[in-house]
Amino acid sequence: MPGMNPDIEKERNTATFDPKEFTILWSGGEQLYKEKKILEKLLLDDPELEDPQPISYFSHKELYENSVRKACIVGEKIRKLRADGEDGVNTYNALLGGSLGSAILKEGNPLALHYVMFLPTIMGQGTIEQQVEWLSKAWDCEIIGTYAQTELGHGTFLRGLETRADYDAKTQEFVLNTPTLTAYKWWPGGLGHTANHAVVVAQLYTKGEFRGLAPFIVQLRHSDTHEPLAGIDIGDIGTKLGMKGVNNGYLGLKNVRIPLNNMLMKNQQVLPDGTYVAPKNNVLTYGTMMFVRCAIIRDTATALAKASTIATRYSAVRRQSPIDPNQREPQIMDHTTQQLKLFPQIAKAIVFKATGDSFWNLYNVLSGEIEQGNLERLPEMHANACCLKALCSADAAAGVETCRLSCGGHGYMDCSNFPTIYGTTTAICTYEGENTVMLLQTARYLVKVYGHALTGEQLVPTVAYINEALKLQDFVNFDGSLECIVKAFQFVAANKVRVAYEQVDQRRQQGHSTEMAASLSGVFLTSAAELHGRAFLAQSAYTELLAMCKQVSPALADVLMVVLELYLVDACLNRIGDFLRFINLTDEDVTKLEVRLQRCLERLRPNAVALVDSFDLHDRVLASALGAYDGNVYEHIFESAQKNPLNKEPVNASFHKYLKPFMKAHL
Amino acid sequence: MPGMNPDIEKERNTATFDPKEFTILWSGGEQLYKEKKILEKLLLDDPELEDPQPISYFSHKELYENSVRKACIVGEKIRKLRADGEDGVNTYNALLGGSLGSAILKEGNPLALHYVMFLPTIMGQGTIEQQVEWLSKAWDCEIIGTYAQTELGHGTFLRGLETRADYDAKTQEFVLNTPTLTAYKWWPGGLGHTANHAVVVAQLYTKGEFRGLAPFIVQLRHSDTHEPLAGIDIGDIGTKLGMKGVNNGYLGLKNVRIPLNNMLMKNQQVLPDGTYVAPKNNVLTYGTMMFVRCAIIRDTATALAKASTIATRYSAVRRQSPIDPNQREPQIMDHTTQQLKLFPQIAKAIVFKATGDSFWNLYNVLSGEIEQGNLERLPEMHANACCLKALCSADAAAGVETCRLSCGGHGYMDCSNFPTIYGTTTAICTYEGENTVMLLQTARYLVKVYGHALTGEQLVPTVAYINEALKLQDFVNFDGSLECIVKAFQFVAANKVRVAYEQVDQRRQQGHSTEMAASLSGVFLTSAAELHGRAFLAQSAYTELLAMCKQVSPALADVLMVVLELYLVDACLNRIGDFLRFINLTDEDVTKLEVRLQRCLERLRPNAVALVDSFDLHDRVLASALGAYDGNVYEHIFESAQKNPLNKEPVNASFHKYLKPFMKAHL
Repeated sequence: MPGMNPDIEKERNTATFDPKEFTILWSGGEQLYKEKKILEKLLLDDPELEDPQPISYFSHKELYENSVRKACIVGEKIRKLRADGEDGVNTYNALLGGSLGSAILKEGNPLALHYVMFLPTIMGQGTIEQQVEWLSKAWDCEIIGTYAQTELGHGTFLRGLETRADYDAKTQEFVLNTPTLTAYKWWPGGLGHTANHAVVVAQLYTKGEFRGLAPFIVQLRHSDTHEPLAGIDIGDIGTKLGMKGVNNGYLGLKNVRIPLNNMLMKNQQVLPDGTYVAPKNNVLTYGTMMFVRCAIIRDTATALAKASTIATRYSAVRRQSPIDPNQREPQIMDHTTQQLKLFPQIAKAIVFKATGDSFWNLYNVLSGEIEQGNLERLPEMHANACCLKALCSADAAAGVETCRLSCGGHGYMDCSNFPTIYGTTTAICTYEGENTVMLLQTARYLVKVYGHALTGEQLVPTVAYINEALKLQDFVNFDGSLECIVKAFQFVAANKVRVAYEQVDQRRQQGHSTEMAASLSGVFLTSAAELHGRAFLAQSAYTELLAMCKQVSPALADVLMVVLELYLVDACLNRIGDFLRFINLTDEDVTKLEVRLQRCLERLRPNAVALVDSFDLHDRVLASALGAYDGNVYEHIFESAQKNPLNKEPVNASFHKYLKPFMKAHL
Repeated sequence: MPGMNPDIEKERNTATFDPKEFTILWSGGEQLYKEKKILEKLLLDDPELEDPQPISYFSHKELYENSVRKACIVGEKIRKLRADGEDGVNTYNALLGGSLGSAILKEGNPLALHYVMFLPTIMGQGTIEQQVEWLSKAWDCEIIGTYAQTELGHGTFLRGLETRADYDAKTQEFVLNTPTLTAYKWWPGGLGHTANHAVVVAQLYTKGEFRGLAPFIVQLRHSDTHEPLAGIDIGDIGTKLGMKGVNNGYLGLKNVRIPLNNMLMKNQQVLPDGTYVAPKNNVLTYGTMMFVRCAIIRDTATALAKASTIATRYSAVRRQSPIDPNQREPQIMDHTTQQLKLFPQIAKAIVFKATGDSFWNLYNVLSGEIEQGNLERLPEMHANACCLKALCSADAAAGVETCRLSCGGHGYMDCSNFPTIYGTTTAICTYEGENTVMLLQTARYLVKVYGHALTGEQLVPTVAYINEALKLQDFVNFDGSLECIVKAFQFVAANKVRVAYEQVDQRRQQGHSTEMAASLSGVFLTSAAELHGRAFLAQSAYTELLAMCKQVSPALADVLMVVLELYLVDACLNRIGDFLRFINLTDEDVTKLEVRLQRCLERLRPNAVALVDSFDLHDRVLASALGAYDGNVYEHIFESAQKNPLNKEPVNASFHKYLKPFMKAHL
């Protein structure tokens, strides 16, 4: 392998800021940066965690077996960290998901749900006694669990779940059944062949009466032989677009009996005689969902950071299509059209990260308030979390694909790592609340709030702009300043909410029920929620990046200001139809914005490589022949092809078996 | 397996038109429909062409070997059809790509390039003598070839290719070399381990002088042993996002000598003494590119037809999220938000198919004109082909993903077949002219035409709207009629071309070269080209669907009119920013369009299943557990999971090897 590619070296030499400064900021400070480096060393220097060949060459079964092998090594390291008292949320995030986990198990970890769902569910929903009984075994991985909720025929709508648990007071047992094919649990990670326990969510019946959903710990496989227990029909659901090593499974239950004490009873109880004690409130569930969605916003930032790093480095090295026919083909990053593909993704990575971080902090403040019984801001934050989850995941998935396509044919090869990154990222659009459902939840909140605004009520902070917009007749003096773009986004969002409100209202007046009126206005609702989310992101970008600028060197602040302007102008042009609909802008105003976008691209160009360098993604995390730090794109691609098992033999067996007889058939 | 799913049966019973009528139209008439059915029988009834297991469970190497096996069987059938005189363009299309080919080899055919590139290149660029020498061997598959042009470091810009052929007059041979790593041929299908010959495109040097590009037939592997010949470094490039069975390969050449007669010499010649005779013109190359791009437009329609069929049938069966909390969960197709995902894809499938067909006819007319030396409409049609290729492929890829996401988690499973359809469809955005490059070519033409318009010149038909727009100051009386939407699209496109022209012009006046001015205006240029393409599609949808309506039953005509209106209103709303920028529309006008879109969705709803049924895609072509004709979605998914090799054993070996030691470590 040659040294540094000269084109990429030149980029680094001519950058106007020190990437290390932004790296520290991006990592959350010196301390967290150091911890990150220690974890990287712990995992990436272990030769046992390397793959015998690029995993895309494995069959599904081989991939699973290799995943279990590595997951156990990672599990052992977690045990050690825990014994040394060095575990914590950041560590689990890093090892199981995030960037580092994906460097080790890029198609996912079949033990992940044990750590991120099975353990937390017991902690959150088990009584103290139940925690004592189960947690230490689970922490030590004497038992390995997963979380089984979604069914083959039922997802989002929990009341539709069919799996049932009937309490038998005689034996003090629950009898679990999946009465139909559509009741089969479907999707839980690790359920196929890895876990031997699961938290199963089922409809509870005691004394012949329906009581609602409850979680049950069910042993699935024999502790020694791992054979499925009686009444358990279990397997792997099959190959998928991504997350290929996760061992998503299915589970059918036929008269499976478990002791009374296996129902997690912190929030609701069944007494030995079958008496049911209902839960006090459901606020805690909200909290968990928001926690997960906060984490998701950060994941979308990581996905964009990875994809934009790979595509930007490639674009610094790849030369193609001369601008001046008498000159050498330029680095493709010099084409404006290429810049428009790459740079907005870099900006989004930064804005989503900053938004995720600040939302995380807000979540922590809120958690405190909730514990003290103050639930006032819960619906607001839930609504925001929903639409941010939807927008960030959709933008990230689209951004990853834009980056991939910007690398032409080479982006299509698995060795670019784009296919895997896309598989992981697009999954976010569906899990933890399908995006359209998320937007509808936000919209329902916004329409309600709009009704309050009409009656002159004061609104909570993140929707207060609706009140302000109501006071304005028109949005005047669009001066194009960053602050003005943020305000304009809010004005536009408020008007979208107004239109949605009016649509629902009209249909109600035509005699539809509120529910039916909302359903018939679905398209108006989702688009209002989208604009609310866009306005939120614009405000957050503005607030967070300006705050960053105040604490960094002038050289870095200059770059961050370009990032901010690029983000806002691009966001505005992407929704220019909504802007023009509600704000009186001329053709020339739009052209001015477009010229300004182009100018932002030009200004970011010299720092593009340094900016993605500062995301500090290890070559093993990127896992991309196109994105390696040294920029030796072609050498890495070629090297990767040499690892192809097909290339180990000059002539494949299929020649003798099929091709030769076919070719010689008529000779 | 149960009989027909009752929900989907109900849909079919309540449709207002006869799907068979549209099927015949879609197939191109009774005769072609019959031929299609005969070919289907020939391929789909052959048990040898079934896979031993779903191919997603294979390793890359196993997949290749299974692909060769099946490709040889298909090849044998082609031989037979040819011997019986029953071959033809339609047959090759059907067997090698299109829908039927994908039913047999859903990840592509490693012999495809032999038929669609190697043979046609010899026919198009070989002299009569060369055709005699090579064609019969190639038709009989005594030799199997591919077409090697793209290099590891060079794609679109052909003059940048590095592979060279130096003529040695002493031995009357060419000496071929790939002098650098970036000169390696990269990507040709079948090159890895399948083909034993290739047409290699190289820079020709004779008498020490550079002569331009030329095609050479190079033998790569020994006819009997299939071992790579001396100086040939060859292999498979590795796993990819899609087209996984195609055996894309790489090729390095080191002093490989081939006889003088192996250069294809129909258009240019090298005489034995090394004298070079240049080609007369390059018009023929244009012709081939347009031919391929016409075919591509049809492929994008097929992709959308497949994806929308699967998602629509699934949406008729899947029930989720009650609208009325007291009622059963509805078919998800009853949610407006779901309709907005599905129905525009159905409409696009129909419009792209109609456009592809009419463009194909135009191409044939034009080919005739060109052969008679009339090149007048060539640049215009080339420009249109470029932007249609770009827009239809981008829309189709996005549409496939929209359909996949509309099926929630189940769309993510390979058994939905969405991942494969997406892999095949998104590839179209890159091959045969990368989409951004395509749009820039169209834009270059449009800007030139705009200059002509300014001087009052008459314009050729498909850009004549620019002249009309120049005459109008404003677009008045937007009455929302379909004709008006088409006219408005043209007005908007003309204005986008004007803005692009002005941007290029301004930069030229600032002192930039024309090339640099165009490069700096890249974003304006691509977006002008896009609008031109959208206007073309709008006009084409209007013309072709109205023409269809005149020849069908009133019941079908009613449905097609809804399809047309849906297509146009949706297209307009998708570019509403451009409309509002150049046409004076109010907030109420936009709301009216949105309400109308919603109304179109409602009107299409009762016929959605019948409409996708009428695409007449065989279950084997769809290859989807979600999209089978019988609608037994859950049964098919479950059945598919049972074919997972992991599920053949209750306990996977990795339990004993890794998991058990890990779990028992601390006991």
